[in-house]
Amino acid sequence: MSVTEPRGFRAAGVAAGLKSTGARDVAVVVNDGPHRHAAAVFTSNRVAAAPVHWSRQVVSDGRVDAVVLNSGGANACTGPQGFQNTHQTAEFAAEALGVSATDVFVCSTGLIGEQLPMDKLLPGVRRAVDLLSDGGGRAAAEAIMTTDSVSKTASYPATQDDASEGYTIGGMAKGAGMLAPGLATMLVVLTTDAVLDPAVLDTALRAATRVTFDRADSDGCMSTNDTVVLLASGASGVRPDPVQFAEALTGVCASLAHQLIEDAEGASHTIAIRTFNAATEDDAEMVGRAVARSNLFKAAIFGADPNWGRVLAAVGTTSAAFEPDRLDVAMNGVQICRDGGIGEPRELVDLTGRLVTVEINLNAGSEAATIWTNDLTHEYVHENSAYSS
Amino acid sequence: MSVTEPRGFRAAGVAAGLKSTGARDVAVVVNDGPHRHAAAVFTSNRVAAAPVHWSRQVVSDGRVDAVVLNSGGANACTGPQGFQNTHQTAEFAAEALGVSATDVFVCSTGLIGEQLPMDKLLPGVRRAVDLLSDGGGRAAAEAIMTTDSVSKTASYPATQDDASEGYTIGGMAKGAGMLAPGLATMLVVLTTDAVLDPAVLDTALRAATRVTFDRADSDGCMSTNDTVVLLASGASGVRPDPVQFAEALTGVCASLAHQLIEDAEGASHTIAIRTFNAATEDDAEMVGRAVARSNLFKAAIFGADPNWGRVLAAVGTTSAAFEPDRLDVAMNGVQICRDGGIGEPRELVDLTGRLVTVEINLNAGSEAATIWTNDLTHEYVHENSAYSS
Repeated sequence: MSVTEPRGFRAAGVAAGLKSTGARDVAVVVNDGPHRHAAAVFTSNRVAAAPVHWSRQVVSDGRVDAVVLNSGGANACTGPQGFQNTHQTAEFAAEALGVSATDVFVCSTGLIGEQLPMDKLLPGVRRAVDLLSDGGGRAAAEAIMTTDSVSKTASYPATQDDASEGYTIGGMAKGAGMLAPGLATMLVVLTTDAVLDPAVLDTALRAATRVTFDRADSDGCMSTNDTVVLLASGASGVRPDPVQFAEALTGVCASLAHQLIEDAEGASHTIAIRTFNAATEDDAEMVGRAVARSNLFKAAIFGADPNWGRVLAAVGTTSAAFEPDRLDVAMNGVQICRDGGIGEPRELVDLTGRLVTVEINLNAGSEAATIWTNDLTHEYVHENSAYSS
Repeated sequence: MSVTEPRGFRAAGVAAGLKSTGARDVAVVVNDGPHRHAAAVFTSNRVAAAPVHWSRQVVSDGRVDAVVLNSGGANACTGPQGFQNTHQTAEFAAEALGVSATDVFVCSTGLIGEQLPMDKLLPGVRRAVDLLSDGGGRAAAEAIMTTDSVSKTASYPATQDDASEGYTIGGMAKGAGMLAPGLATMLVVLTTDAVLDPAVLDTALRAATRVTFDRADSDGCMSTNDTVVLLASGASGVRPDPVQFAEALTGVCASLAHQLIEDAEGASHTIAIRTFNAATEDDAEMVGRAVARSNLFKAAIFGADPNWGRVLAAVGTTSAAFEPDRLDVAMNGVQICRDGGIGEPRELVDLTGRLVTVEINLNAGSEAATIWTNDLTHEYVHENSAYSS
């Protein structure tokens, strides 16, 4: 599992003292080749963190040799000093690794608006480089956690018994709030030993994130730091079919996205909102997202109240194609709203389990999309009011 | 105060048994003329309640003789039966009042997705008609409350000492959740004894609601029932200057909107988000609304944490004109973010009071707008998870 599952990668995660708890907070992932192909997607937030600005440049030529990640500070809204700190981090790691700084990708996560303690971060990077190993993926996954309660990793093939095409994909992710599409902050590193050109990687990555991370909308808040980076070493010698690779990558991303939603800050329910019979996929996504962002709906699910009126109130705010008197809504399989009005008794809906499925039939076409979200709980309010993050 | 302050209006509020608490739940407001001019604005939610569909037709000719309002049931998502119930309510009130049903405006508020108990509602309307008086405004304001903790009324002139132009405006409002621009559900009735034609009323009402109710965004959830109706009796014989009237009306609406935000479900802070130096007023409004809808920011304010990073993260999601490194943010007068980076120490911000002012300087022009919202609290989650509403 994790980013060292594919051949050609080493990683490490160490405690550098950025987190007051003494937990791991600096990770390094290195691609030993023979190829150093890469692609990445970033937050669309215009207030982007310094490492986002830096890493956008790094990946623009399709080559990344190493990724340096830290938790304990987002390095966002930190001005010229913040950018200089990211630059210095890349230079420092590059020298330790014997590569060019312009091939060192940097990610940060934690509180916005504070400068990183460089006197702790740089020695941490030094120690991580010294500890790099092909078994270091787990430690790296731990080092990027913030309010996550567990580290998140995934791989393709998912188990040793699964059929393989001769290559492997590994991944790690962090994030537990500000998830839309990212998290306070969502960081994802994906690795593969497949032989793939940067353009193919880019296409596959965008296809995979569009239907996975982009549809995980825990609390509607878009982060300043969200980054998903994909590295390809070519060490397997296998050049997969691009479509098959994109599907395998989507599977790994779906697993990681699902783990993020399962571990979202303070959530007691995981909610899958499937909108179907939509005129377009965009319509289906828009409707699902509107429901996922209704605090009234999310609080009702926390209270185990199958309040379909709040679902319809959210659907009604969108410009999707539908007739209000042709909307059907089912929760956990019970058709509680039919033709925009009262359906089966709401008492029949059992919301005691973790997973809640909401199925919205727009009766306006044949497209569909699923948005994943969480309920709005006392714990969410507590975690996000009691601590700065 | 309230809707019977202007000459030419009678009102009543009674308990008809729609609320299980036995509190007042049916109100009637009658315009005795000589004019029966009217204008109204409604929710833009496409899943609109039956009384919204009905009342849109009623007001379309600029004439309304009476308004019937009920709490204890929204009559939304209730299908053809729901529309028939609204129609029957109007017919019943019209007969009792000796007017035409097509001049009877109807408003409902309460739980979505349940039919109204007509066997209780109609006798309540009958009793309210019997009790109509020119001192009934207070009782009517009480009868439209749902989760409101206090009734909301306002008038122009605001006090007897204020200068008057010889005419009067009165108003009542309800709403405490699903406030954007309305509330579970926002209903507002405004009355005036000024002499004004329907077209002038309509222009003034749209101008007033645009900068008051439309900018009160408590929880980002738009209701199916929001309605603001303005009735003019002409009983003062005074025909005011349209601009002066619009200003006076805006003052009454601002007072009612402020009372709604002060009483919003579970809120412990009232937050005024003023965006200034914007390129356009739309930009200023968009930025304020994005911040007002950030759960992370709202939870931070509940925790008395001046987390300006969450403000910038929200601003960054908009398409407003600004440069990220030229954003300034002050909270309660302390400039905690300067040039998109760290400003004064966050410890200097005192968030213990009810009112929080957030001032966002876009440094991109000369326009401004203020959005009013609330913090995200345990009480909000509790009220919206423990009970259906």
